Amino acid sequence: MIKIGVIGYGYWGPNLVRNFSDIPEAEVVAVSDLDQKRLGVAKSRHSSLYTTTDYQALLADPAIDAIAIATPVSTHYHLALQALEAGKHVFVEKPLTETVKQAEQLVAVAEQRNLVLHVDHTFIYTGAVRKIRELVDNGDLGDLYYYDSVRVNLGLFQHDINVIWDLAVHDLSIMDYVFPLTPIAVSATGISHVPDKPANIAFLTLFFENNVIGHLHVNWLAPVKLRRTLIGGSRKMVLYDDLEPSEKIKIYDKGITLNGNKENLYKTMIGYRTGDMWAPQLEITEALRVEAQHFSRCITHGERSLSDGRAGLRIVRILEAANRSLHEEGRPVKFEWLFGDAAHARALSIKAAA
Amino acid sequence: MIKIGVIGYGYWGPNLVRNFSDIPEAEVVAVSDLDQKRLGVAKSRHSSLYTTTDYQALLADPAIDAIAIATPVSTHYHLALQALEAGKHVFVEKPLTETVKQAEQLVAVAEQRNLVLHVDHTFIYTGAVRKIRELVDNGDLGDLYYYDSVRVNLGLFQHDINVIWDLAVHDLSIMDYVFPLTPIAVSATGISHVPDKPANIAFLTLFFENNVIGHLHVNWLAPVKLRRTLIGGSRKMVLYDDLEPSEKIKIYDKGITLNGNKENLYKTMIGYRTGDMWAPQLEITEALRVEAQHFSRCITHGERSLSDGRAGLRIVRILEAANRSLHEEGRPVKFEWLFGDAAHARALSIKAAA
Amino acid sequence: MIKIGVIGYGYWGPNLVRNFSDIPEAEVVAVSDLDQKRLGVAKSRHSSLYTTTDYQALLADPAIDAIAIATPVSTHYHLALQALEAGKHVFVEKPLTETVKQAEQLVAVAEQRNLVLHVDHTFIYTGAVRKIRELVDNGDLGDLYYYDSVRVNLGLFQHDINVIWDLAVHDLSIMDYVFPLTPIAVSATGISHVPDKPANIAFLTLFFENNVIGHLHVNWLAPVKLRRTLIGGSRKMVLYDDLEPSEKIKIYDKGITLNGNKENLYKTMIGYRTGDMWAPQLEITEALRVEAQHFSRCITHGERSLSDGRAGLRIVRILEAANRSLHEEGRPVKFEWLFGDAAHARALSIKAAA
Amino acid sequence: MIKIGVIGYGYWGPNLVRNFSDIPEAEVVAVSDLDQKRLGVAKSRHSSLYTTTDYQALLADPAIDAIAIATPVSTHYHLALQALEAGKHVFVEKPLTETVKQAEQLVAVAEQRNLVLHVDHTFIYTGAVRKIRELVDNGDLGDLYYYDSVRVNLGLFQHDINVIWDLAVHDLSIMDYVFPLTPIAVSATGISHVPDKPANIAFLTLFFENNVIGHLHVNWLAPVKLRRTLIGGSRKMVLYDDLEPSEKIKIYDKGITLNGNKENLYKTMIGYRTGDMWAPQLEITEALRVEAQHFSRCITHGERSLSDGRAGLRIVRILEAANRSLHEEGRPVKFEWLFGDAAHARALSIKAAA
Repeated sequence: MIKIGVIGYGYWGPNLVRNFSDIPEAEVVAVSDLDQKRLGVAKSRHSSLYTTTDYQALLADPAIDAIAIATPVSTHYHLALQALEAGKHVFVEKPLTETVKQAEQLVAVAEQRNLVLHVDHTFIYTGAVRKIRELVDNGDLGDLYYYDSVRVNLGLFQHDINVIWDLAVHDLSIMDYVFPLTPIAVSATGISHVPDKPANIAFLTLFFENNVIGHLHVNWLAPVKLRRTLIGGSRKMVLYDDLEPSEKIKIYDKGITLNGNKENLYKTMIGYRTGDMWAPQLEITEALRVEAQHFSRCITHGERSLSDGRAGLRIVRILEAANRSLHEEGRPVKFEWLFGDAAHARALSIKAAA
Repeated sequence: MIKIGVIGYGYWGPNLVRNFSDIPEAEVVAVSDLDQKRLGVAKSRHSSLYTTTDYQALLADPAIDAIAIATPVSTHYHLALQALEAGKHVFVEKPLTETVKQAEQLVAVAEQRNLVLHVDHTFIYTGAVRKIRELVDNGDLGDLYYYDSVRVNLGLFQHDINVIWDLAVHDLSIMDYVFPLTPIAVSATGISHVPDKPANIAFLTLFFENNVIGHLHVNWLAPVKLRRTLIGGSRKMVLYDDLEPSEKIKIYDKGITLNGNKENLYKTMIGYRTGDMWAPQLEITEALRVEAQHFSRCITHGERSLSDGRAGLRIVRILEAANRSLHEEGRPVKFEWLFGDAAHARALSIKAAA
Repeated sequence: MIKIGVIGYGYWGPNLVRNFSDIPEAEVVAVSDLDQKRLGVAKSRHSSLYTTTDYQALLADPAIDAIAIATPVSTHYHLALQALEAGKHVFVEKPLTETVKQAEQLVAVAEQRNLVLHVDHTFIYTGAVRKIRELVDNGDLGDLYYYDSVRVNLGLFQHDINVIWDLAVHDLSIMDYVFPLTPIAVSATGISHVPDKPANIAFLTLFFENNVIGHLHVNWLAPVKLRRTLIGGSRKMVLYDDLEPSEKIKIYDKGITLNGNKENLYKTMIGYRTGDMWAPQLEITEALRVEAQHFSRCITHGERSLSDGRAGLRIVRILEAANRSLHEEGRPVKFEWLFGDAAHARALSIKAAA
Repeated sequence: MIKIGVIGYGYWGPNLVRNFSDIPEAEVVAVSDLDQKRLGVAKSRHSSLYTTTDYQALLADPAIDAIAIATPVSTHYHLALQALEAGKHVFVEKPLTETVKQAEQLVAVAEQRNLVLHVDHTFIYTGAVRKIRELVDNGDLGDLYYYDSVRVNLGLFQHDINVIWDLAVHDLSIMDYVFPLTPIAVSATGISHVPDKPANIAFLTLFFENNVIGHLHVNWLAPVKLRRTLIGGSRKMVLYDDLEPSEKIKIYDKGITLNGNKENLYKTMIGYRTGDMWAPQLEITEALRVEAQHFSRCITHGERSLSDGRAGLRIVRILEAANRSLHEEGRPVKFEWLFGDAAHARALSIKAAA
């Protein structure tokens, strides 16, 4: 059984402790937080674990196999690095780090030491997103056309990161998981309505190879909450609405057909297909539980996590480029993928296989 | 009573004929179209008008006061110019022309000859959009923050213009009417999924003065139809859903409040307000009827149309710039407003008054 | 080609004229109405037909094969009877008559004279209802459990008939068409909120053989418009929402399973099934056009209409019984089906075949 | 501080323990349940309380002021009676008892001994229902016309009570709280689709004085979950949708107006009003917490609960009559209200004041 130490018991930490406590593969043995009151709450809920305000105690504890980090983004790099250097496997909140350089270093250290470095890209462990990936992998959607997401609501304004790093990161990780494609460039726009604060509304276009486009739409200042993604393909299209209580995924047998017209080379005929809609039953296990089990098994079996450090690095690379574009009012920023992270591993393997 | 000749009896022309026939201020006396079959339909529905395949006959008819043009965009400039030169008032479909230069020329000719040049920006004559303008003018929304629209559906792919010119033009005309602000720059992205055809999916960010942002989201290849706009202000926010049968406008008493915190200069406190929602009863007269009456009265009383040639020119200027940005993957394009069209007339007058 | 004369050009008559004019199987030759102005409108829209304020002229016209009646319910019996006696086939608005006795007489006369007597149960000619019937006939729903409809909106209050005769008649005709079952008894409740006027809100329970129940919910005084029906079966369940623009029918693979528990005779184990949802593409031809073609073909080929006089009589029998129950606050009223109308023809044939 | 003992730690008991633990006015000191495992769960969550499989220990404990009963309906009478006879105040799940006679006896004992007898009619403590009552009391709705509720979903089938006792009880308690009216008669229909089990689908009409009607629609075998109530009044109408995340109450300024027409005594003119819709911000404190505080204060201040034994008795009287009507296929059953319970206390006081 994997023994876990959790650093940070604020907003998300309690969910980590609860899920790692509930699965048979792992056990939470310790929690650290700077706030004694929070530690009291943790202790009252899980009487068997020990609590401390000194996270170093967790790193020094030889009984602990893995460290889960649920602290502000600015602390991820240092905490994760120290944990890896102490020989611990690491489960860290998204986004992985504040910079590409930091992320690259964490990936390198984890790989050198053969430790699992897992980033908490929670959505890819939901039944909905796994179903979408299945549809893409099976070829049900046909050629991919676009990914188009709206993720808006009122609050919570973050003081240290902008709305892209807070909300768009979810969609970036979903696209990274679902699309077997490498992004080429990003154009981002947005502004802040609060003086001297990070952008609270932003729009991000990702250009992929193969004429595929992604668009993300994030806003902390919307009167209604929306979590809705359209995914277009040549054979089918998907509407993924995460706020629907039971039918989160709807698959439409709709689209266009192109008929080359030999008589008239200048004219491509477009036909419209409309057909059935289908909402598959989805797996409803809590995503974080699935993820906690996946992380534990990666450690036990020496496997690579689906959302490993390289995935985390790919997301940070896009976020960093998006910030640059945002400050230049949408000027496109191209990615310079290096060998290794450069290529979306899955894309490469799929292409190699094809 | 204003006597109207209509050129073009395809998709939209019949609506023009029907509405101008129904109002007491005007009368349709002639229709021209290249297709005899369509003319037969027009005649069967409105037996008193004369029909012809030669639009020149309408321009030459001294009994006709005004020409309504419902033909493809590429023909607008030539038809409108000839009509103006024949001394006719002009009602022309949106967008006004294919280029800024053409639009400038039409505006100049109309103003020299003191003729009404009206562009069919239909949405600004709906009860919903007029209500939004009223909310902005009354100060009910407070300081404006953003305009954020999603306008997607399956089809109809246009062969001559891209999806921005087809769909975003609606939102551009709404923003032009509702926001007392001058746009500064545009960033547009998008692609085509049909070889050698105009972009069928596009995203457009408009930067306005006063830290206001606009974003338009248009797509001909979506599995569901959406027509939804969020408008954010410091005091209230609006959800405008044109597909709602009865509650198209919802006004939310939601937002944030900023409290300067003197003790800590580095910290701006953000508080969240949530309150009632209110859906006002809207005027439901068909927009085109309101517009037909407005056009007729402008002629009779020598007044300027709310959607006159200058409004049409402003929209074409944005569309032209958006196309440039689109071809450069989102690179921002700044507007160079000239005196006269440069400034949004309403913006200026409001500022002068303040 | 069947030649049609239409009596009544008020709310529904224009739809009849338009649809019978549009199909190749028929032609409208005459329209009568007491109101000269309405006749003028009819004439302006369909210049080839003749109009008259005297419906007898239509009955006397030997060129007319069939009479369509779109007048108030109280006139149906006399007009239909005279038309049948004049040797005309008859297409009559629903409900067929005001009383069972009248309906029985029309059925008898039509059958004696071998004339088509068709009642305008429009909904059974929609793509949605035909799809539901297909699901029932294929056994996709399994054993039928219930039909449960909500049909409410604001207005139009009728002065001569109550809300059951106005709105519930639609659901009664759908059930009659879709369910291969004979109703046994009805319980109806409701009241009027306008002094001395017919009930404007009512609820109606139909008890069928085989433990099947139907419930109708009608209201002229609701703040929102709802048109929603749930149909429960042992294998699948249907949600039919007629206001949905594209997905009117949703089929749920949900339900319960019963497991006899031998160990404990007193305990029936109920398991819950949840599964996919599916919205089939529906035929979208206007129902009235389908119906007009069906009526015309019944005449040409000497066939019986799907909504013939016997169907109309069955509905009137239920309506009459519902009225009795309504006046006694829900006391159940049993039907005494006579041989011939007693049995739902389809029910019998299906049972005979099984 | 009121000291509470809770009997029953199954589905609802944990909510009672949690809420009574969280408020300053009360403290849970003991929990009894027949299942040792559940007691273990209770103990792990709330370490300070004592647990026992013998509920008599709670009744005998002089430190306990009040007993909360969260057990099957069939046990309510005996447990509540013993608790009252032991001098304890009682908080009991709905419905109060299985029979009117039992409920009458509990009311009598509680009143003789001056003990608080509170029935857990949870919904009347929600922000939504309190807002509706406020609208009725203020006269905002005008004269009341109807209460019309749909409360359906898939499962959970109860083995001992039918769907009316399980689901309609919520609406009966809401109507009892919101409507200042006495019900006169009930008509109920429904059936069971599981052999030898209670009805799983049912429809219930309540006739009130003043021409007001109530209708409840309950179903354990529906493919979708619905919780929607329409409340009609002469001035305004309400749509209460408990599944809406934020706008549970919508108030429509819609309705009809009656204009007596002196010229024509036979004709009442009906005009239709349509106007704004308004969704007020609602109080969002958990209902059970509000209720726990109310119960505690009633004990401390010697006050009568809003959902006291008499309210519980009124509901059981309606349920018992509904069962009789259900077995006779909708035959109406009149209530014989006795002085005291007969009259809706609030109705009387309002009328006396008017």
